Amino acid sequence: MLRGIVPPVLSPLRDRDALDEAGLERLLEHILGGGVQGLFILGTTGEGPSLSYRVRRDLISQTCRHVARRCPVLVGITDTAFAESVGIARHAADAGADALVLAPPYYMPEGQPELREYLQHLLPELPLPLFLYNMPPLTKVSYELDTVRWALDQPGICGLKDSSGSMIYFAQVLGLRGSRPDWPVFVGPEELLAPSVLMGGDGGVAGGANLFPRLYVALYQAAAAGDVARARDLQQRVQQVVDRLYRVGRHPSTIIKGIKCAAACLGLCSDFMAEPFHKFRAPEHLRIEQAMADLAPVVAV
Amino acid sequence: MLRGIVPPVLSPLRDRDALDEAGLERLLEHILGGGVQGLFILGTTGEGPSLSYRVRRDLISQTCRHVARRCPVLVGITDTAFAESVGIARHAADAGADALVLAPPYYMPEGQPELREYLQHLLPELPLPLFLYNMPPLTKVSYELDTVRWALDQPGICGLKDSSGSMIYFAQVLGLRGSRPDWPVFVGPEELLAPSVLMGGDGGVAGGANLFPRLYVALYQAAAAGDVARARDLQQRVQQVVDRLYRVGRHPSTIIKGIKCAAACLGLCSDFMAEPFHKFRAPEHLRIEQAMADLAPVVAV
Amino acid sequence: MLRGIVPPVLSPLRDRDALDEAGLERLLEHILGGGVQGLFILGTTGEGPSLSYRVRRDLISQTCRHVARRCPVLVGITDTAFAESVGIARHAADAGADALVLAPPYYMPEGQPELREYLQHLLPELPLPLFLYNMPPLTKVSYELDTVRWALDQPGICGLKDSSGSMIYFAQVLGLRGSRPDWPVFVGPEELLAPSVLMGGDGGVAGGANLFPRLYVALYQAAAAGDVARARDLQQRVQQVVDRLYRVGRHPSTIIKGIKCAAACLGLCSDFMAEPFHKFRAPEHLRIEQAMADLAPVVAV
Amino acid sequence: MLRGIVPPVLSPLRDRDALDEAGLERLLEHILGGGVQGLFILGTTGEGPSLSYRVRRDLISQTCRHVARRCPVLVGITDTAFAESVGIARHAADAGADALVLAPPYYMPEGQPELREYLQHLLPELPLPLFLYNMPPLTKVSYELDTVRWALDQPGICGLKDSSGSMIYFAQVLGLRGSRPDWPVFVGPEELLAPSVLMGGDGGVAGGANLFPRLYVALYQAAAAGDVARARDLQQRVQQVVDRLYRVGRHPSTIIKGIKCAAACLGLCSDFMAEPFHKFRAPEHLRIEQAMADLAPVVAV
Repeated sequence: MLRGIVPPVLSPLRDRDALDEAGLERLLEHILGGGVQGLFILGTTGEGPSLSYRVRRDLISQTCRHVARRCPVLVGITDTAFAESVGIARHAADAGADALVLAPPYYMPEGQPELREYLQHLLPELPLPLFLYNMPPLTKVSYELDTVRWALDQPGICGLKDSSGSMIYFAQVLGLRGSRPDWPVFVGPEELLAPSVLMGGDGGVAGGANLFPRLYVALYQAAAAGDVARARDLQQRVQQVVDRLYRVGRHPSTIIKGIKCAAACLGLCSDFMAEPFHKFRAPEHLRIEQAMADLAPVVAV
Repeated sequence: MLRGIVPPVLSPLRDRDALDEAGLERLLEHILGGGVQGLFILGTTGEGPSLSYRVRRDLISQTCRHVARRCPVLVGITDTAFAESVGIARHAADAGADALVLAPPYYMPEGQPELREYLQHLLPELPLPLFLYNMPPLTKVSYELDTVRWALDQPGICGLKDSSGSMIYFAQVLGLRGSRPDWPVFVGPEELLAPSVLMGGDGGVAGGANLFPRLYVALYQAAAAGDVARARDLQQRVQQVVDRLYRVGRHPSTIIKGIKCAAACLGLCSDFMAEPFHKFRAPEHLRIEQAMADLAPVVAV
Repeated sequence: MLRGIVPPVLSPLRDRDALDEAGLERLLEHILGGGVQGLFILGTTGEGPSLSYRVRRDLISQTCRHVARRCPVLVGITDTAFAESVGIARHAADAGADALVLAPPYYMPEGQPELREYLQHLLPELPLPLFLYNMPPLTKVSYELDTVRWALDQPGICGLKDSSGSMIYFAQVLGLRGSRPDWPVFVGPEELLAPSVLMGGDGGVAGGANLFPRLYVALYQAAAAGDVARARDLQQRVQQVVDRLYRVGRHPSTIIKGIKCAAACLGLCSDFMAEPFHKFRAPEHLRIEQAMADLAPVVAV
Repeated sequence: MLRGIVPPVLSPLRDRDALDEAGLERLLEHILGGGVQGLFILGTTGEGPSLSYRVRRDLISQTCRHVARRCPVLVGITDTAFAESVGIARHAADAGADALVLAPPYYMPEGQPELREYLQHLLPELPLPLFLYNMPPLTKVSYELDTVRWALDQPGICGLKDSSGSMIYFAQVLGLRGSRPDWPVFVGPEELLAPSVLMGGDGGVAGGANLFPRLYVALYQAAAAGDVARARDLQQRVQQVVDRLYRVGRHPSTIIKGIKCAAACLGLCSDFMAEPFHKFRAPEHLRIEQAMADLAPVVAV
């Protein structure tokens, strides 16, 4: 049973259609060294939908080979095309991944009955257990509560990650799953890591854990142990990471750009971004560099 | 220079990952027989993003072969992954298509400067001229007016289709392009066909023209000729098509499902839908059948 | 039966809670001199909800007295409190107004059945016929089509003004009212004046008609006569008014501020704004002044 | 310094424009008996904007007289008209209220600089300290973080209530106010009471505290004391209140209707609603009655 910090791993790129393999290895070692409980590749922070299928397969293979079962690897298979999701899922299973992660198809806005029927058709095709990934700001469609209730009875569905940003929704999902310890519920936005775990959540898929895995692991542990004072303190440090690294640019992409640029500042990997994004130019790069220097004492745990 | 009705062609499917080839041929003949000016495949009505890349390539090849240059074929290349858009574009050029159609990448919400830079990088890779496809309800991101102004100066961009549903935006785009007759502006929602052409628009990408191409061609011609009374009359008939065929189901998919079901009622092609959608069940099918019977006198022109 | 241009009259203010009476008289003469068909006071452009009840009553009395039945006066009674709407309505009747205008209560978001029941309770209390005012961007709640269908059967409801900005909605309302010439449908956004009248609409409530009433009257007449070429030409001039006067500031208030500032440039009235808005400072004032000079030949008809 | 539970008091009505005075007294005694720290009248739950000014003044006077300084009384002065806000504020001060509460003017959507200038103009007119009330779902406009930062330096502004529903925003506000114990931050949605207080919030403005004040006070105390297990347990009971009482109707009004109907079931006051709402009919009333019976053991603390 998965609990704790499962970072959404960056996808290091050498150029538009090629992985930065050495960078990926350094990044994985860095994250694993921080004591995380799992890895999630090809999510939003991993720019999954922006990568060609060739690069996605490559990333899966290399990650699984390098991790070598030191922790579970979760693979994003969200896609607008059914057959492509299945294709990635099979590749992930062959490569030795442990689970799949699926947000609703995100071009056509499907109704909840359509979404459930789609899942019913998809589940038998999947060779690995599936986490639902609730991400309405990007997919337009949520896994609404009726669908979550239904999902709890599907053998192939093993948990949920909520990136809605709504603690109200998160609490309702916790209520639905009740005391089933085998159906973990993770939170996406790292601003909500402490409160969601204090309220019974099982962990976080925090982008900042690419950079400071120990900080996020410590925060999870404090909150899971009910140490309110320490959880608050560590959450405030995470808030400083957010304020300094995720607000440098003007567009929503600033979060991923900030993390990737900071990873480059740490010497982990290239900051090349997949289209339609482009890496920070010199002025923003400098601001991230300065922020990383300033954050050093903040993130030390 | 393209003007008039350019239907967004349905993608007839035999099953989840196979084209209904005979249905596609009948459908194309039916549409071409109505006097349309062009065809647009792999758009929203064509369920483009829901099809596997194999089926997309197949559809492009078969459409181009069957149309055999009787009219221009436009191919949707909208994708979240740059390399996949380029791949489809090259296949379209090889197959003999005439132009490409691109909505903004639709998972990550890019800012307008990011969108322009993305286009700057994409255009040199494209072997055919490009139409912009403004579709904010599905892509979350618009081609805002500054980007349209910039696009007017890009040699590779040859026009725009607006499915925003906003006549205010449409009129602003018409204002920007001024009197350039070589840069057509098309409207998506068929409810807006008469007013947009009366105000200077160049035509419509009307889903209903899969079914009743003559009606939409006649409406376009009346509006383009400034025949207000006839344009109003024909627009009201289109409104009846909308009211009877596009509101049968409960979800936004009801429009595409309605058109595909009606095409099946006409004996044109299978009504199998790509995931995450599923064809109408019997009760809805019956309502579409009845509607088609009732509409027969309405759509006769 | 009301048809044509019914300007939403500015509310000239001397200071935060006092009418600019001389300005109001000059403004009314200016508008009436342009050949408009009616006047609408206490709407959005008239900053109705921002005025104290004392000033609202004052404005009603003075407008009715000054207009002296030269054209119909419509009075906005939109309010969050039932009793206050009724109070204003009675004052309007006493002052000699001709009709009332009501958008849905705009704090609490009511459902459509609640909205209809509210109207059922309100109508018997109103001493004058009522126009519905559809303004979802500000009220959050629309008069949805079922409610419009219901309203068509209410003796006390005499027409509708649509400021949704959606020509699709507008066309649907036209379809519902059919050929009832006694139930006029007006459009709010002046960018839509030509297309909406060409499609059968009965006129416009155009803010710019405070400044250039002849231009808007001419545009209405051309469109109502089916003169497409002239309607397009005049609509393009209106678009220049929009582009030059309504985009000077950064916030949505820029439209009303621009019109009021331009009215001051014409020497009609004070540009004092009701809270929470504040009149343009010198730089914006200068831009409006320059725009008014540039627009002089554009608006001459 | 105010901390703890400050219920948004229902406004008991005899009919459309008259207070249920006896009901108000019983309701106030019931709430005060539960150990709350303050009372907030004329908020959203109190249907403030739906009441005539006469009734609002009446409610203020009677509440202050009946409470007789047993706890602080906060009065909502949110309005679209500046002069009316000031008028209510003065009446509140005269009646003996302790503080005012203000959401942004909610018809015209003002920009943040406009909102700050409005506050600058309003503050000198107010005879009592002011709480900001962040309620973007109803006002469309937020107190954005820059405005909160500015507000922290205004002597007349003494705290903030956040009903945005976003714990991310709430945490950012907590970060801004730092360790100023004299500037309390309250949360609106009762689903967020435990997590917000665990993270450092100062209390809640929970509608359910009209019915079960002890439950909410106990929850606040547990969370403020860092007793995570008890806070979670009590929050789950609150969630049962939410699930059983606030989801009976179909429209957003169902929350207020549910609370008022339940108060009637408790024999506290009439369930008459201000327009545009209307009290539950018999079937919904029965469901609330049953829910109240079922909830009795849940809410006992």
